Amino acid sequence: MAFAQIGAIDAGGVNRQALTGEDGLSQRYLVELAHARGFACSRDHIGNLFIQRDGLEADAKPILMGSHLDSQPTGGRFDGAYGVLAGFELLETLEDMGLSTVHPIAVVAWMNEEGCRFQPGAMGSGVFAGSYDLSAMLDRKDRDGVTVGEALNAIVKSVPLPVATIDRTTPAGYIEVHIEQGPVLEGLSLPVGVVTGIQGIRRLLIEIRGREAHAGTTPRAMRRDALSAAVGAISKMEVAIAAADAEDLLRFTVGMLTVSPNSTNTIPGTVRFTIDLRHRSDQSLKEAAALIEGLAKAAAAAGRCELNIETISNVSPTQFDSELVAQLESVAVALQLGHTTMTSGAGHDAMHIAKCCPTAMVFVPCANGVSHHPSESANADDLIAGARVMAAVILRNAGLVEKIT
Amino acid sequence: MAFAQIGAIDAGGVNRQALTGEDGLSQRYLVELAHARGFACSRDHIGNLFIQRDGLEADAKPILMGSHLDSQPTGGRFDGAYGVLAGFELLETLEDMGLSTVHPIAVVAWMNEEGCRFQPGAMGSGVFAGSYDLSAMLDRKDRDGVTVGEALNAIVKSVPLPVATIDRTTPAGYIEVHIEQGPVLEGLSLPVGVVTGIQGIRRLLIEIRGREAHAGTTPRAMRRDALSAAVGAISKMEVAIAAADAEDLLRFTVGMLTVSPNSTNTIPGTVRFTIDLRHRSDQSLKEAAALIEGLAKAAAAAGRCELNIETISNVSPTQFDSELVAQLESVAVALQLGHTTMTSGAGHDAMHIAKCCPTAMVFVPCANGVSHHPSESANADDLIAGARVMAAVILRNAGLVEKIT
Repeated sequence: MAFAQIGAIDAGGVNRQALTGEDGLSQRYLVELAHARGFACSRDHIGNLFIQRDGLEADAKPILMGSHLDSQPTGGRFDGAYGVLAGFELLETLEDMGLSTVHPIAVVAWMNEEGCRFQPGAMGSGVFAGSYDLSAMLDRKDRDGVTVGEALNAIVKSVPLPVATIDRTTPAGYIEVHIEQGPVLEGLSLPVGVVTGIQGIRRLLIEIRGREAHAGTTPRAMRRDALSAAVGAISKMEVAIAAADAEDLLRFTVGMLTVSPNSTNTIPGTVRFTIDLRHRSDQSLKEAAALIEGLAKAAAAAGRCELNIETISNVSPTQFDSELVAQLESVAVALQLGHTTMTSGAGHDAMHIAKCCPTAMVFVPCANGVSHHPSESANADDLIAGARVMAAVILRNAGLVEKIT
Repeated sequence: MAFAQIGAIDAGGVNRQALTGEDGLSQRYLVELAHARGFACSRDHIGNLFIQRDGLEADAKPILMGSHLDSQPTGGRFDGAYGVLAGFELLETLEDMGLSTVHPIAVVAWMNEEGCRFQPGAMGSGVFAGSYDLSAMLDRKDRDGVTVGEALNAIVKSVPLPVATIDRTTPAGYIEVHIEQGPVLEGLSLPVGVVTGIQGIRRLLIEIRGREAHAGTTPRAMRRDALSAAVGAISKMEVAIAAADAEDLLRFTVGMLTVSPNSTNTIPGTVRFTIDLRHRSDQSLKEAAALIEGLAKAAAAAGRCELNIETISNVSPTQFDSELVAQLESVAVALQLGHTTMTSGAGHDAMHIAKCCPTAMVFVPCANGVSHHPSESANADDLIAGARVMAAVILRNAGLVEKIT
């Protein structure tokens, strides 16, 4: 709640977009808390912030926890910040209890997960993992022409830190806790979701072109109505997807649809719509895309319309580490915290980090499944449950040592 | 083609919106042509322009022909102007041939049929017929705040004319020739459509409200997708309408549809769309609207969405005078001009004038059924055919007298 004061907006939300003054203030606050505990803070060249509590073996690889501190322009208090602060809570608890670990444990706040001010999102974790080129990302500009490099320099001056020694070859593992950003856990009344991977995404842009004509004078038999063809296509897709996906694992969404000329008394000449497809299996995505293309072709032909289909995004699914997933599950059982395994529908920094080291995520419910909105909320018991499950697995892998003093 | 030079735009179209300088120039040109022939010109208080050739009996009621000279912003050369100039051609022909009629014959150019600059359309004929209040219409403003009264005064100063003596109680009959603005006559390869009436129009605005949610994280079973519900509703409406209207007489068009927030990865929260329904029978319109409302309710309920339906327009069908229709048909047969009877899909000034006196219309084909577009076109033989059918019926009713001199 103290972090939620930084960049606070009406209705309980936050606006703490990447590399803004508010993002800088949140980093400064975290670094002050860390320095007060004697934890080492550092930053890499793309602006990822690391807070490390040393382990007993100097050469042991660090175990990472974390998420991000940046937010959407009208974001919520929990998306990202929860994962960073849950990790920091573990470091403080170890300190409070005088416990040591063999491996160092580090909390990371990845730079620009949201991708609002600078695209793409998950930029810091993407550069860390080698998915994106550092210098190309430093050159990305916001709407005002300010580059990532320039905005980052302002933060570096405001909160100067040593250059991080952690890179993609360093971590022994990574666990990210996050609110679910969907309604599943709340619907099941379970506090913990052990995330087995992140869905792949295929996005199609479909354009159907018919012929504009007068709504009053053109008989049905002589129409080439682009919206009628689009409606026919989408309704058949929904039926076919529901039939082919009885388990409700495929996410099919027509989120954007525009009609031209969009006039009450003119038969639509052109309709463009997007299809956002997500599934944990690449093969299922491929099959669904083929099914959709076939139905779009048939509907356009039936409506005497022309068709163009473009694949505008194609991201493969991420599989998390099965050993970490099994550990998270067994810990949830041991702690008597109700849990389910699930696939993440949204992208996360863990998507990139999974390329570098064993990675997994833990989800907790959020109220009404809402995220990216000031009303985003989560209850304390669930947030604690997620942190406990993460902490137990981190400590198991970091080599917890009994109190020394 | 000379008139098409006034307000000419690229690609062969015209921009001669009501009461603009271009509209004034077209009136001036017509008045000059009329005065050169000695026809009396006058204007009523809403700006309808009358050109009268006197009859032999001073008390006989005038027979009217005409249409409008104003156009859409990117309009064509024939929509409206054809009807005015075909009427004027008849007056000139009578003059050329030295023929007289018992009744006076007048050509009228109704003010602001298109309704682009000032709403509503068919304003001049509507005031003439008593459908609209004169002073309310004079106060209507365009986007710049200029009133109809102010714009009309500029025309009056530029082309001063006596106040017309013709009002709604005066005419003995009215015939309007017009391009079809649809594809039916061209499809049938017929030069003449005898119009038996104008379809009624019902317009519905349907709003479906679901719940915005993340496209990646929300299972199908937990969605309240407003677009999915709208697509389900529209596709069921199309099937039901096609089944109930085997004769293809009902015009059903979803011309406008907007999605909110219209974002690729967000399940739509709200969809608004219009339904434009037209039929020559009020009962059929009422039944279709009821069918549509029922299907919208069912689709919204199936998609767990809320529904609001508003009737935004409800205009009853117009029936033209059966005697005039029969005369037009028999003349077409006598002149060996292929014809069909048909209902007008679009509104016309004749819609209002039918309240004042026996009224009918004649349609001629336009290329590809296109109107309200610079590419609007019609061929000379068809334009002549329509004018001949009109002329014969006007002369029959006006009491043609053999050459006197």
